[in-house]
Amino acid sequence: VKTEFEFIEKLRSAYGLGKVGDDCAVLPKDDQLDLVITSDLLVEEIDFRLDWTTPELLGHKALAVSLSDVAAMGAEPRSALLSLGIPEALWRSDLVARFYEGWHRLARAFLVELVGGDVSRSPKGLFIDSTVLGDVPKARAIQRNGASPGDGIFVAGTLGGAAGGLKLLESGSRMGGDTPSDKAVLLEKQLKPSPHLSIANCLQTQQLATAMIDISDGLSSDLGHICRESGVGAEIRAEKLPIEPALESFFNSAESLDMALNGGEDLALLFTGDREKILAAALPNVRHIGEVTANVGSIELITGDSRQPLLPKGYRHF
Amino acid sequence: VKTEFEFIEKLRSAYGLGKVGDDCAVLPKDDQLDLVITSDLLVEEIDFRLDWTTPELLGHKALAVSLSDVAAMGAEPRSALLSLGIPEALWRSDLVARFYEGWHRLARAFLVELVGGDVSRSPKGLFIDSTVLGDVPKARAIQRNGASPGDGIFVAGTLGGAAGGLKLLESGSRMGGDTPSDKAVLLEKQLKPSPHLSIANCLQTQQLATAMIDISDGLSSDLGHICRESGVGAEIRAEKLPIEPALESFFNSAESLDMALNGGEDLALLFTGDREKILAAALPNVRHIGEVTANVGSIELITGDSRQPLLPKGYRHF
Repeated sequence: VKTEFEFIEKLRSAYGLGKVGDDCAVLPKDDQLDLVITSDLLVEEIDFRLDWTTPELLGHKALAVSLSDVAAMGAEPRSALLSLGIPEALWRSDLVARFYEGWHRLARAFLVELVGGDVSRSPKGLFIDSTVLGDVPKARAIQRNGASPGDGIFVAGTLGGAAGGLKLLESGSRMGGDTPSDKAVLLEKQLKPSPHLSIANCLQTQQLATAMIDISDGLSSDLGHICRESGVGAEIRAEKLPIEPALESFFNSAESLDMALNGGEDLALLFTGDREKILAAALPNVRHIGEVTANVGSIELITGDSRQPLLPKGYRHF
Repeated sequence: VKTEFEFIEKLRSAYGLGKVGDDCAVLPKDDQLDLVITSDLLVEEIDFRLDWTTPELLGHKALAVSLSDVAAMGAEPRSALLSLGIPEALWRSDLVARFYEGWHRLARAFLVELVGGDVSRSPKGLFIDSTVLGDVPKARAIQRNGASPGDGIFVAGTLGGAAGGLKLLESGSRMGGDTPSDKAVLLEKQLKPSPHLSIANCLQTQQLATAMIDISDGLSSDLGHICRESGVGAEIRAEKLPIEPALESFFNSAESLDMALNGGEDLALLFTGDREKILAAALPNVRHIGEVTANVGSIELITGDSRQPLLPKGYRHF
């Protein structure tokens, strides 16, 4: 059985697709800038359930996942297109208007302009294709293939919260209520994730990152993408992982570790670069979690004195 | 009940979306060029049926409809993104590989490079979001709002063939067999439409068109879009319409006229401009069909000595 990653790899080599396979494609724009562009599908029953969220939150998330891809290139988002497939019954409700309202609330915060898209009837289920374009200084897009042995490995943001939120939703929890709580934190990580654009901007301005990806499939899978594209190995330390603190109210430490390693959708940023310089920059919410090695093909998780291979167990559509 | 056009209009004014509403959005690129970008959804059971086409033809059509939008801006296509929602059973078949093969065959012909996209599982039904980016000389994108009273109205390509092909498919005809025939012509208009990029390129180079749109919804609707955006009226002559000749093998003249006026998907180009200059340019397959008038809000069809309002009866999703 082919996975989606194997399939994309096959397409890349069959058709010579040099620009496919990073968080965004990078295209030449002008003398100073390159253009980056990314598309992300969100499909009802696969990526979201309408009874677990609100139309506004869904609009937020559809934009947030693409903004996170732009952030992961060290780029600034500028414009967006939205394509929606909408079942007849939902078209007649206020869902679509509320979706655009949630989308625009986030778009305004980052000065992103909606410039196009498409609307179609869908025979069953809502689906969304979110496309975002951005700018990055010429030849300075931060890709997946720039990690070198000796680089430190870092995470911006916390891990596992979105997966924890999903588990709470599955067991019946819902957004609502106005007291801040660990439950609300986890549900928000899943339903209203925040892209880390300002940290990405700092990394770009100070040229600190050699490779970067946003953790959308899960740390274990996404670290695998960086290692494969860069032709390097990696070791990370379990005790250094920025596991989302709110998880401990609902899950034991083994469950939390599993979600931090393999849960997707956190929109945390995973990046590599000179350890001393990055630590000296004292960026907020950035944690050093391990090292890039020359041991190509090997990704290890170190727990105390023991090492074990970290297998990619993140989310796959196929 | 709100139509999709009313809804998009509402979004445009609610959020001040100045770049939404043409065939493509136009974004600044560099000193010489603007960037155009368009997205088109194709949804199974709405826009296509898998038992009426082949995966290769579907790949062709998914790209062709977006190339036609780029052509309608007087722009050159350069890059593309493809997002596919795929049911599990189709993923395990050869459909996706054959879809990309058909897509790439057309892409190579126009030197379009696939740079990104997304792949997701779909719980039911295949869907495709096709995004194409192109270049156009700075400030020379041909929009819908440039028509002036006195301009001639022209069509490049024939009308009604795609609608005729759809009717043949509905009554059981299928592609196949190797003798050229009117049936094959109509089925190909529906299943393997050709975007008119070279004529669009001539219009751009010689700066002949004041407004342009590709006929994807139907002449009556798409002429309405130009008139509304330009603040003008129009009159067209029934006997001048380039009705697809192959229609006469299967349909009477009233049916053929209806398909030419209201059938979508022909990917013909509808444009306006100086009548004498455009006729002098002697562009192949370009027909003069009427005149832009100062009679705002009035679009009339002239048949012999009689005039009647031409109501927008083209395709609507909602």
